[in-house]
Amino acid sequence: MIIVFKNGTSQEDIKNMQERLESYGFQTYLPVGTEKVVMGAIGDETALRDKPLSAFPGVEKVVPIAKPYKLVSRDFKKDDTIIDIKGIKMGGGNVAVMAGPCSVENRDMLMYIAERAAKAGAKILRGGAFKPRTSPYAFQGLGEEGLKYLREAADANGMLVITELMDPRDMDLICEYTDIIQLGARNMQNFRLLRDLGTVKTPVMLKRGLCATLKEFLMAAEYVASGGNGNIIMCERGIRTFETETRNTLDLSAVPVLQSLTHLPVVADPSHGTGRRDCILPMSQASVAAGADGIMVEVHNCPEDAMSDGDQSILPNDFDILMDRLDIIANAIGKTLNR
Amino acid sequence: MIIVFKNGTSQEDIKNMQERLESYGFQTYLPVGTEKVVMGAIGDETALRDKPLSAFPGVEKVVPIAKPYKLVSRDFKKDDTIIDIKGIKMGGGNVAVMAGPCSVENRDMLMYIAERAAKAGAKILRGGAFKPRTSPYAFQGLGEEGLKYLREAADANGMLVITELMDPRDMDLICEYTDIIQLGARNMQNFRLLRDLGTVKTPVMLKRGLCATLKEFLMAAEYVASGGNGNIIMCERGIRTFETETRNTLDLSAVPVLQSLTHLPVVADPSHGTGRRDCILPMSQASVAAGADGIMVEVHNCPEDAMSDGDQSILPNDFDILMDRLDIIANAIGKTLNR
Amino acid sequence: MIIVFKNGTSQEDIKNMQERLESYGFQTYLPVGTEKVVMGAIGDETALRDKPLSAFPGVEKVVPIAKPYKLVSRDFKKDDTIIDIKGIKMGGGNVAVMAGPCSVENRDMLMYIAERAAKAGAKILRGGAFKPRTSPYAFQGLGEEGLKYLREAADANGMLVITELMDPRDMDLICEYTDIIQLGARNMQNFRLLRDLGTVKTPVMLKRGLCATLKEFLMAAEYVASGGNGNIIMCERGIRTFETETRNTLDLSAVPVLQSLTHLPVVADPSHGTGRRDCILPMSQASVAAGADGIMVEVHNCPEDAMSDGDQSILPNDFDILMDRLDIIANAIGKTLNR
Amino acid sequence: MIIVFKNGTSQEDIKNMQERLESYGFQTYLPVGTEKVVMGAIGDETALRDKPLSAFPGVEKVVPIAKPYKLVSRDFKKDDTIIDIKGIKMGGGNVAVMAGPCSVENRDMLMYIAERAAKAGAKILRGGAFKPRTSPYAFQGLGEEGLKYLREAADANGMLVITELMDPRDMDLICEYTDIIQLGARNMQNFRLLRDLGTVKTPVMLKRGLCATLKEFLMAAEYVASGGNGNIIMCERGIRTFETETRNTLDLSAVPVLQSLTHLPVVADPSHGTGRRDCILPMSQASVAAGADGIMVEVHNCPEDAMSDGDQSILPNDFDILMDRLDIIANAIGKTLNR
Repeated sequence: MIIVFKNGTSQEDIKNMQERLESYGFQTYLPVGTEKVVMGAIGDETALRDKPLSAFPGVEKVVPIAKPYKLVSRDFKKDDTIIDIKGIKMGGGNVAVMAGPCSVENRDMLMYIAERAAKAGAKILRGGAFKPRTSPYAFQGLGEEGLKYLREAADANGMLVITELMDPRDMDLICEYTDIIQLGARNMQNFRLLRDLGTVKTPVMLKRGLCATLKEFLMAAEYVASGGNGNIIMCERGIRTFETETRNTLDLSAVPVLQSLTHLPVVADPSHGTGRRDCILPMSQASVAAGADGIMVEVHNCPEDAMSDGDQSILPNDFDILMDRLDIIANAIGKTLNR
Repeated sequence: MIIVFKNGTSQEDIKNMQERLESYGFQTYLPVGTEKVVMGAIGDETALRDKPLSAFPGVEKVVPIAKPYKLVSRDFKKDDTIIDIKGIKMGGGNVAVMAGPCSVENRDMLMYIAERAAKAGAKILRGGAFKPRTSPYAFQGLGEEGLKYLREAADANGMLVITELMDPRDMDLICEYTDIIQLGARNMQNFRLLRDLGTVKTPVMLKRGLCATLKEFLMAAEYVASGGNGNIIMCERGIRTFETETRNTLDLSAVPVLQSLTHLPVVADPSHGTGRRDCILPMSQASVAAGADGIMVEVHNCPEDAMSDGDQSILPNDFDILMDRLDIIANAIGKTLNR
Repeated sequence: MIIVFKNGTSQEDIKNMQERLESYGFQTYLPVGTEKVVMGAIGDETALRDKPLSAFPGVEKVVPIAKPYKLVSRDFKKDDTIIDIKGIKMGGGNVAVMAGPCSVENRDMLMYIAERAAKAGAKILRGGAFKPRTSPYAFQGLGEEGLKYLREAADANGMLVITELMDPRDMDLICEYTDIIQLGARNMQNFRLLRDLGTVKTPVMLKRGLCATLKEFLMAAEYVASGGNGNIIMCERGIRTFETETRNTLDLSAVPVLQSLTHLPVVADPSHGTGRRDCILPMSQASVAAGADGIMVEVHNCPEDAMSDGDQSILPNDFDILMDRLDIIANAIGKTLNR
Repeated sequence: MIIVFKNGTSQEDIKNMQERLESYGFQTYLPVGTEKVVMGAIGDETALRDKPLSAFPGVEKVVPIAKPYKLVSRDFKKDDTIIDIKGIKMGGGNVAVMAGPCSVENRDMLMYIAERAAKAGAKILRGGAFKPRTSPYAFQGLGEEGLKYLREAADANGMLVITELMDPRDMDLICEYTDIIQLGARNMQNFRLLRDLGTVKTPVMLKRGLCATLKEFLMAAEYVASGGNGNIIMCERGIRTFETETRNTLDLSAVPVLQSLTHLPVVADPSHGTGRRDCILPMSQASVAAGADGIMVEVHNCPEDAMSDGDQSILPNDFDILMDRLDIIANAIGKTLNR
């Protein structure tokens, strides 16, 4: 931690800060000759994060040196974490595709879409049984019935299930049916739910909040990891910017940046990231080309009838084309598409 | 609802859309002579919100005409809603001040701060017993003990209590002690919790999400209102932008804009909105001058020792000065400071 | 300057950096015992700003300590700069109001608006003769004819003129007629034009760019000041965010933050900052309550017929009401409205 | 154009608007039975863009139907525009790579980098002779000397030159040496300069402004096209968001979205778009995978010594690897890398 003082800060205020830091168990140093008066604090920075050092008289700014997250950091574990569920892998050169409808609407549509997705090479079936909807008057999902269909459709096609948890009261139910728990973007800083996820064994896919910095995103993962569950997948799904042509702005550079900061697998979701069907193929290709360890894509056989997100789903035939391209692109950069 | 078609869309695709809209119970019209082909749909637009109309072939864009929220809209209720709890009022020309520490840290500090705040004229005591913290390693609040101190300190000074609910499992406990439930910015789109808040009678203060549009903010209020609880206060508390000199960007124009769209009271929180002590007085004054129905301010007798948000708390003496200024400013624009 | 190294950086890379810094004339220090390896550089940081230190192997981040601007900084000059033109003052407790139409449309309308604005107490007449328009097909301003009308209307009412410079080729012409040169938001980082403004004696009002940080805004002022022209007014006029209910988001906390960083006067423009007529009164009041040294407001006698920005202009009668309120608010915080 | 009225608007206000629209030469229609009162205007919408319709009493919002740009729109010209300069093509399936240093620093470095870039397959040499710098104290470029070196290095390697124009007074000089004029992000809304670019014959590459919407970006191109110069390349180079791990956020979905809206070639600049060397390979690959018609990359033989942007330049050896990957990726999606 470096403390920078305002010009003209009194010797007393500087000494006051020094004593305070030492009372917290830190050693301090005061380099001489710098343009500004700066003070360094030597010790475990975590202990200082909570202290309102910038509330002290004379302080211009406080500059943290260490990263605020530990367990999920590349500094803590150098090698890529590979999430391996029943032989299906993400991370460490393995690219996996999660595909399926936005919401589970009924059994027939799900069975059909799962079969087509599996045939094209997807290994993980996505689908929502509990849906976060901005309007209280919109379709809210089938609940447990939807979970049952998901399990059935996945099992029939040798796939894993990923589905979203919205409320702590659904945790046991969801864990009964799913292979991967998805935590939605709007819950990325639901700290109590993050804590709960640390106590289960099911792998978790965290979606980046719409206005979460990468540091906050990693802190959310740290919440889960600090509770004991290290099976975490990070999912970039678009951030909110001023641009309105796309629903969100898919921040693809988050993929290489996160991979430099954490050992966890990093995937992308071009469907939510753009909200436009005509962007899904280009941005899925771009995601894999940027080095993503997987992608999540909404596939629907009749988007015009979809009960949610029809605008951002692609047809099974387009998904076939996409998977062939992803195969070539993954190879071009030395990775393997799980297929 | 207006549907705009791409140039060159076939008659068949246009007819297809027309039949679909009619099958949903809408009348349609197709004005002749416009530069682009546009189709209007006449009927209750709510029924169309869920339909993926832009997934249809030929559609360039879909333009909603009606607002997606009803109960909280000025169109639904023309007069200002006045929240009146034990005679303390917000809305309709009444300005109320909520003051207190970020977290309840112990009984003594709280009793002292409450007394000072009340003396200066604050009518509502704020303080967190359950704290949302970005780091799993930070102080998480005193829990029920904190709620007890809050109630005691408020009662001793004739004040109301406002405190934050983070998890549905705490609902009963919180309702036992508080007069107003605060829903934090990070939970603004926790739709299950919003639904739960609709089922209680305690008034609710919703904080705007860090990247929530005003429309989404009003939709969150609609969730609560549609459940049966219409005692809602809207709180602007800063949005996330590219600027980093302040923790967030307090979007004060949200105050007049919201007041034109909803009948609910609108307040502002300059402490969280800026994250800087030197901005609290100016921005509190600005909030009232912009027409806010109240403000929320963090006051701490020793910010350097605060267990959270010390950087954005003001001293009791500064709070005294602030209250005197707010009184004059409220009068200048024809409002009354509850004091 | 502090350099933070990645974990596991070799001694050689660290030594390499040390030698490089010393070759630039800096002393270095390496505090022992910190969690991360950090290196401090002692000397005039300006000399390092241009060096790509983060391109060196092993460097995790480079943390500047000194501010990148000097002449405009509060550290350089402690007391408020007061811009005083023919006895009309901004800064140091003096609040001045700039009012007038967006564009100069014709002589009559300008004479009428100027008279009304002056009568209400405005001391500076605004109006555009060269207009920046997003569409090549929109009205581009009257040019020199507009400048003449501005001068005439201002002189007839004892006012100053402020008008916008868009192109270096208009500099002489503009200087002939105006008292203050306005540099528009879209030109805030037109570095050649900034340089040119440093060479004239006419005071300059810089508008903050739509996505300019306050640091960049101050750097733009530094360009002008470093050329020799220190008569600079900083104008917050709204930044671009995700919110679309207002044209821009007026970042009012920029007022107190800038005033802490620079000695220059800071004003706000609620017309462009919100783009909505119903926000102008509230946000003008808020600007003065936040401590602004002035405001700029668009006033038009017939907004429905305005050739630009009619949507964000107020009527002369509303301006009368506003000025009375601003007087009280300025007094409430210890300032004086120039009237 | 659709005008939506507030609930309760008087018949007189509605009639007033109708008469006004008809006085502008528009036909109007008023569909009966809609939830809100809406009025349609039939005619050439361009004529209405300039009118402050939302300033009329009773108007809730004004919804434009037609696009504000014409010449650059896909509606105007269906087929891809192919920019072909001396046989080097961009657009219509042709992908071209622009590579070189940020600034031209001296003749030797430029000759070496150009040779390496050409050998790897780049067809266009980039380099700045006039540099936009946020600090007045930073290196501002070699000026004409730099232009001469660029021309010489490009000619020696069979390459084209692209370099930036910052000021109208440099137009003739720049045109003498360059094949493509680059307009920087900070000048994207320098409307006078856009107008000037419409009067020359040299192709222009427009960089998207840091906070420009795609609509504004296309309007900037419309300025150039409306002046008579239709040889325009659109360059996505990162927008400003809240994320600070990267210098900007490369908005790659802008590539497919722009390609759907305009016939002009669309390229991406991952160097400026991310500002991080470790992101350049992944994001260059992603750009081509997203369908970009070209990319611009900063290559420097010794980034640690670069006089600008060393942090975001790659080494010639990395550029070799990149070009091989881009070849495969372009083929995978049915395009051809110009090599």
